[in-house]
Amino acid sequence: MKKKISEKIIIKKFFNKLNNNKLGTFNFENDAAYFNISKNYKTIITTDTITEDVDFFQHDPPESIAQKLVCVNLSDLSAMGALPKAYTLNLSITPEINLNWLRRFTSQLSRLQKKYNIYLIGGDISKSKEISLSATFIGQAKLKFIISQNKCCLNDDIWITGNLGNSYLGYKILTNQKLKISKKKYKDFFKKCYFYPEPCMFGNVISGYINSAIDISDGFYGDLNKILNGKYGAKIYKKNIPILDNLKKIILDNSSKINIENILSWGDDYELIFTSNKSFKNRITNLAKKNNIKLSHIGSVIRTKGIFDDSMSLIKNPSSYDHFF
Amino acid sequence: MKKKISEKIIIKKFFNKLNNNKLGTFNFENDAAYFNISKNYKTIITTDTITEDVDFFQHDPPESIAQKLVCVNLSDLSAMGALPKAYTLNLSITPEINLNWLRRFTSQLSRLQKKYNIYLIGGDISKSKEISLSATFIGQAKLKFIISQNKCCLNDDIWITGNLGNSYLGYKILTNQKLKISKKKYKDFFKKCYFYPEPCMFGNVISGYINSAIDISDGFYGDLNKILNGKYGAKIYKKNIPILDNLKKIILDNSSKINIENILSWGDDYELIFTSNKSFKNRITNLAKKNNIKLSHIGSVIRTKGIFDDSMSLIKNPSSYDHFF
Repeated sequence: MKKKISEKIIIKKFFNKLNNNKLGTFNFENDAAYFNISKNYKTIITTDTITEDVDFFQHDPPESIAQKLVCVNLSDLSAMGALPKAYTLNLSITPEINLNWLRRFTSQLSRLQKKYNIYLIGGDISKSKEISLSATFIGQAKLKFIISQNKCCLNDDIWITGNLGNSYLGYKILTNQKLKISKKKYKDFFKKCYFYPEPCMFGNVISGYINSAIDISDGFYGDLNKILNGKYGAKIYKKNIPILDNLKKIILDNSSKINIENILSWGDDYELIFTSNKSFKNRITNLAKKNNIKLSHIGSVIRTKGIFDDSMSLIKNPSSYDHFF
Repeated sequence: MKKKISEKIIIKKFFNKLNNNKLGTFNFENDAAYFNISKNYKTIITTDTITEDVDFFQHDPPESIAQKLVCVNLSDLSAMGALPKAYTLNLSITPEINLNWLRRFTSQLSRLQKKYNIYLIGGDISKSKEISLSATFIGQAKLKFIISQNKCCLNDDIWITGNLGNSYLGYKILTNQKLKISKKKYKDFFKKCYFYPEPCMFGNVISGYINSAIDISDGFYGDLNKILNGKYGAKIYKKNIPILDNLKKIILDNSSKINIENILSWGDDYELIFTSNKSFKNRITNLAKKNNIKLSHIGSVIRTKGIFDDSMSLIKNPSSYDHFF
């Protein structure tokens, strides 16, 4: 079993330039690497795998696959209040993957590295029957500013960044749901939201003022449920949930095929839900404006368990959302 | 595409106990975690994926798969002179994997955690068509004691730990090569070497006295070639290459099916090759004795490129060992 593939050429051709010339990477000539974390900071680590036919499809643009891999990990770091620094990469690729694919994939990584000020520390490449990509991201944060998912407090404001459902509609368009959509440019916009999700890197900015945060990767309801952690409930102002006017109109025009509930049970927008004490309301609103982040105040943490609407009708029972086996 | 699986039950049942109650793991209730590195140390990181049908087979004992995943990563840290601290895990598993498999897999991880004084920081679980496991290991080392693969010096002694070929023979036995082997207990021993490779954690102990090190994962020749890095050659005392007497006898009895050259081109023993200045010979020998490490002095770094035997006959041209595509 001659197993471990020497990936010398692939690394030289495509990955070497992603190390930003950092000494600790040894130009990827060692099997391990080192890095520095600033004094007084904790090292934060997160890891996520994306897999063919689950998170993307074989013929998706390689740029999109790179974007998703980086996005799912960066939004985890953001939700924890960390600033990203570096990452490792495990590529399991099929024989169909050619050099052009690798060129496009790594070019996108390079663009994302510049945007988020990160670099590649190391990784490995192996062959498999389906494409599967893991990345482990390293960030840093001061201990007292590390945010947890489940430390929300009673009466906290509940906030959400950006807009929900754009990625969901993009996926519906791409999988040929024959939706009535008036303009091609709308279609293109939503497809792009699906292919190129962007992490909301607001967590580190507001970490001093919030009690809990999570990135929406399992759907609004499921992730809000994690924040509430079986201890509290939430009262949601449904009309405040941020959904683009264009998307609302498309929902109206296609009411037999899509509805708001689908959108709220779907992840992949990678926006943040977070909660904060009411006293920080103005400060948080101002930080959002300053950082050009769309922010919506969508509800409050209440004592009664479950998720309720404005008139206290139950929308969702607290449930486990576990359906692996 | 309801994609990201909430792995709550699996984590609660099998993985929670692997966090050694470290605060920074948040009982795996967040999507990221933090950890500490001792002052004045660098954080060392390495990552490796093992895949079904390449590194193991579907029906291999789950304990063996856990052992291999930990071994490939720990031996990378050792080769760099680092002490391991913690690791993350990405499991891509098929529908055939049941709770009993997960119980056995995580029990082995637990045993290895105790042995190597490490703990699980976090990870994720996803579904796939074949089993694929990635782990990212974190260690620490002082900057001046970090070892590189390719910093060997002219006239350095070349050393090798442990024995070569045990795993190779185990694999041959398991894949029904119908070898003549006199005793069942020998068969069992070599199969065990294949299923349960052990990393040689000597790198951190000797890091102050050596110039270069690598773990043998691609075969003795290929990995020695990486140490020589196209700059130097090696003169090898072939009779000093550590191969168990039992294995030598089996080779003699099965000369049409296996030979020494196969063994030297095969990895998976995860022993270390390292080089050091001749002046440290005694110190290194003593450290090996003290730490109960079998150590063989197998050659020297020479100016002429290539790998030669005692009588300076060329054994191997320097070659790239790259055969991914």
